[in-house]
Amino acid sequence: MALAPQGGGQPRAGTTIVNFRAESNRAGEIVTALRVGLAGLGTVGAGVVALLDANAGLIERRADRQVRVTAVSARDRGRDRGVDTARFAWVDDATELAGRDDVDVVVEAVGGSDGPALVLARATLAAGKPLVTANKAMLAHHGLDLAASAEVKGVPLKYEAAVAGGIPVIGGLRDGAAANRLGRVYGILNGTCNYILTRMEAEGLSFAAVLADAQRAGFAEADPGFDVDGIDAAHKLSLLSALAFGARIDFAGVAVEGIRDVAGVDIDHAATLGFRIKLVALASEDGGRLFQRVHPCLVPLAHPLAHVAGALNAVVAEGDFAGRLFFSGAGAGAGPTASAIVADLIDVARGEVGPAFAMPTSRLAALDRADTADHVGRFYLRLTVTDRPGVLAELTAALRDAGVSIESLIQRGTAAVDAGVYVVMVTHAVREAAVTAALARMAASDAVTARPVMMHLLDF
Amino acid sequence: MALAPQGGGQPRAGTTIVNFRAESNRAGEIVTALRVGLAGLGTVGAGVVALLDANAGLIERRADRQVRVTAVSARDRGRDRGVDTARFAWVDDATELAGRDDVDVVVEAVGGSDGPALVLARATLAAGKPLVTANKAMLAHHGLDLAASAEVKGVPLKYEAAVAGGIPVIGGLRDGAAANRLGRVYGILNGTCNYILTRMEAEGLSFAAVLADAQRAGFAEADPGFDVDGIDAAHKLSLLSALAFGARIDFAGVAVEGIRDVAGVDIDHAATLGFRIKLVALASEDGGRLFQRVHPCLVPLAHPLAHVAGALNAVVAEGDFAGRLFFSGAGAGAGPTASAIVADLIDVARGEVGPAFAMPTSRLAALDRADTADHVGRFYLRLTVTDRPGVLAELTAALRDAGVSIESLIQRGTAAVDAGVYVVMVTHAVREAAVTAALARMAASDAVTARPVMMHLLDF
Repeated sequence: MALAPQGGGQPRAGTTIVNFRAESNRAGEIVTALRVGLAGLGTVGAGVVALLDANAGLIERRADRQVRVTAVSARDRGRDRGVDTARFAWVDDATELAGRDDVDVVVEAVGGSDGPALVLARATLAAGKPLVTANKAMLAHHGLDLAASAEVKGVPLKYEAAVAGGIPVIGGLRDGAAANRLGRVYGILNGTCNYILTRMEAEGLSFAAVLADAQRAGFAEADPGFDVDGIDAAHKLSLLSALAFGARIDFAGVAVEGIRDVAGVDIDHAATLGFRIKLVALASEDGGRLFQRVHPCLVPLAHPLAHVAGALNAVVAEGDFAGRLFFSGAGAGAGPTASAIVADLIDVARGEVGPAFAMPTSRLAALDRADTADHVGRFYLRLTVTDRPGVLAELTAALRDAGVSIESLIQRGTAAVDAGVYVVMVTHAVREAAVTAALARMAASDAVTARPVMMHLLDF
Repeated sequence: MALAPQGGGQPRAGTTIVNFRAESNRAGEIVTALRVGLAGLGTVGAGVVALLDANAGLIERRADRQVRVTAVSARDRGRDRGVDTARFAWVDDATELAGRDDVDVVVEAVGGSDGPALVLARATLAAGKPLVTANKAMLAHHGLDLAASAEVKGVPLKYEAAVAGGIPVIGGLRDGAAANRLGRVYGILNGTCNYILTRMEAEGLSFAAVLADAQRAGFAEADPGFDVDGIDAAHKLSLLSALAFGARIDFAGVAVEGIRDVAGVDIDHAATLGFRIKLVALASEDGGRLFQRVHPCLVPLAHPLAHVAGALNAVVAEGDFAGRLFFSGAGAGAGPTASAIVADLIDVARGEVGPAFAMPTSRLAALDRADTADHVGRFYLRLTVTDRPGVLAELTAALRDAGVSIESLIQRGTAAVDAGVYVVMVTHAVREAAVTAALARMAASDAVTARPVMMHLLDF
């Protein structure tokens, strides 16, 4: 029975066409199921199985064929995962999934930037099979190589689940905003940080207290560094940058600062000034230079990002024709991540290939890195100072000498902390280097009794 | 020179493969441009030309080929449209675009549910060429037929621009949310209405005053009925329903109420109660019944839709795995609409076909219509009554007898209007039929001096 080629999508000279097997359903009709090899049966992998079970009929209608798991790989075969895994072929080495005759597409839900996930990803693409992954760490480090391998074989590399969970932002940038020159793409990309900041604000708790509570409840990892130090958001941002600006992925070029140093007093002062503190991941392209940064930021209450609460994620893309596009939703968890992975499987089943980073890898530009010191914007500064005459004059002189002018200033009348009083300032728009210089001079003063705090304002 | 097939995307037995012409660029390389026939050079059509000019290089990288207009059709050849149209072949009858050898894909930007737009759409698909359209009215009435024709020929029918302008919601539902059973899809789909309501609230103006001002400024049509009576939103909602629920388009099944009767006093009372009035288009599917409605609605201030201001649009989709997805952005205008149209052209250039309504038309279900009388929710009621003893007892008795219980009630102490005083109530969740019955009885009372106002609360 000769079937029309599928899965190869847009055949061009020199590309491989993947032929899926014909099978008969109960009515005796020829159907071609898309057969999935699933590596990893943790929260995400089990979520994929649960979703494919729950919505099998619907998915078959939308994909115009069945999508079903045939083979799996995971560490502990006996563990109860809340889904029936006995019906699947089980392989001990995930890499075997790539070579199996009954696997048309591999879902990598193992995690980790290197190691087994990467070995499997390479083997899958080398075998000319589509790869679906939620692994932002792997893509941030090896995404270009993997995309190039996928191109050579003419198969899709799909990763909607790698950024912002169930929110279709990869599709939104790759397809929906494809006609636009994007000036900026930014958002809230780490649900754990946003959950912590939201609770710190709502309940007046410290970072440490909320983190400990979130760890007890299972919302935060035992080793929270990837999340709270901004690494996870930086992985995701590097993928959005590539998509948005047609740039080669440059994870190492992301300036990263996490939320460990965000204090309740800053959240309070920000609120007084009309802002909310969020961990913002932001990339922009200007004159061929790529600016990428993850940092706690004062977001004006009038900005939609200020209202993204709890574990939600959101992404803003600014197009020269579309204007400001805003996407929000659940950024993590079994359901949303599975939703994105299966959306990718449906795309694969429909035969939609297209380039992983919105254009062939050969067309992606190696952009220079913008110097963050050149960044121009407004800044929030908090200084802890001795409560004695002349201190304010000393601080403002340091700012004046560095060319930094002050838009607003809050000084509490009496000692707010043992170490002294707070002086909080918002600058006018100024080069970051000037602020850094002023802060260095202030930090050296006897009157300044704690490390100065500096945060960016989201000014657009 | 034999080239690999493109544009037909996912070839299956019996489908047509579209072969695009090979051309040489200045360097002598073989390139295959996607050649666009553009019907209509109004705001939208001229926007498409402007975008393709402005971002030509970027689009070529993203589509991996040029996308350029070769032929156009519009009424007045001499009119200055702010873009150079002299370089295009010009045809008087738009239908001719479908048959031209130098046109691979037709963009229909003529408008109107029938007439020349429909003739062109049919001719284009009959010729086995992809069709891109922003025409929600045409799709609401003829979308299924057109999608079926596209399927027969194996060519795409694309309409991202038809709903919510530059926001990629068609892609978001068709692809991004494809793995989900969607319970509800709803949003703000008409920018003119949202602009009017936003200004009514912010400036305390009447509907008529804002509409007249918007007409003078060109933001509203001379004949504003399609917008302010909710027809345009209903067109769009019927398309979202088909996508979200795998349902056959049922525009005639949309219950429609516009914003002409929204009064400043209701906006004020809503604010007092913690709500903002928006024209909400809402569809849900429950037990095989499709509920579709466009109506002014009280949206809680905690809901993201409440913060969609001015001419912006927004769409919410609730998936069983993804959770609540929220998209917002510019819903109309030359730039955003052109952004969506050219995104579709890039999809066509990439060879991505896929079914127009997320599944083959034969798989779309003809769902029964839910009876709006069965809708259960909370209601806002405003009665204008004579200021005399016993009136409140009369009103509350009518509600009690109909089984409607009251959650909150506002009665102003003194006569607020010549005709009497306002009594404003919010009901507990109740069947709509009960509220309608109670209102009918109240309206018949001598004490009720104006038509009672009833609006839905957005309760989720």
